Amino acid sequence: MLAQPVGHTFDAMTPLAPSQRIHLVLLGVQNVPRSAQFYEALGWTRSPTGNDGFVKFNMGGYAICLINREDFASDALSPTATGSGFAGVALIHLARNAEDVLRIRAFARG
Amino acid sequence: MLAQPVGHTFDAMTPLAPSQRIHLVLLGVQNVPRSAQFYEALGWTRSPTGNDGFVKFNMGGYAICLINREDFASDALSPTATGSGFAGVALIHLARNAEDVLRIRAFARG
Repeated sequence: MLAQPVGHTFDAMTPLAPSQRIHLVLLGVQNVPRSAQFYEALGWTRSPTGNDGFVKFNMGGYAICLINREDFASDALSPTATGSGFAGVALIHLARNAEDVLRIRAFARG
Repeated sequence: MLAQPVGHTFDAMTPLAPSQRIHLVLLGVQNVPRSAQFYEALGWTRSPTGNDGFVKFNMGGYAICLINREDFASDALSPTATGSGFAGVALIHLARNAEDVLRIRAFARG
């Protein structure tokens, strides 16, 4: 589409069902390196395909990506980069049992 | 842990690195059936392990789960269930090319 000249019009599209997949979970953060340290403290390794401004963690078939919150808001045409209250989103890792929750916390604290 | 009697104390924990996986992406929504329709309009099918109050879409190794926003905020000990501004989170499906974006939109519009 973007390769088409200005004024190009499209024929009627054949509808296409998207695969049942999300490829990226994009998180806009204040400080990308500091947020990356949070995930690295879990023992997670970043993907070599990321960079200092776009840190990727491969989650097995998709990736969590950390980007600058201001840039993300701008790309998303949001009138503001700040938010307040309850975002209503959680990324949940299920431990195998309750004791493992404590063990994982102990690991993350270093 | 929860199976232990009140007053039980734990020995020093052996730290455990969690696997590099997120198992659930939890989305708190105003109206679970209506939000479920959004994903079903993409041709996605809900998991039989969910129910009307907790709709799950298996994404291949993890699941997107829709729950009542008020209940979610309460479980998360949030002082409010509402939010405003920019949440800073996006779930991104990558189409293979720009034309497929239009085709997927055409599909979702029905």
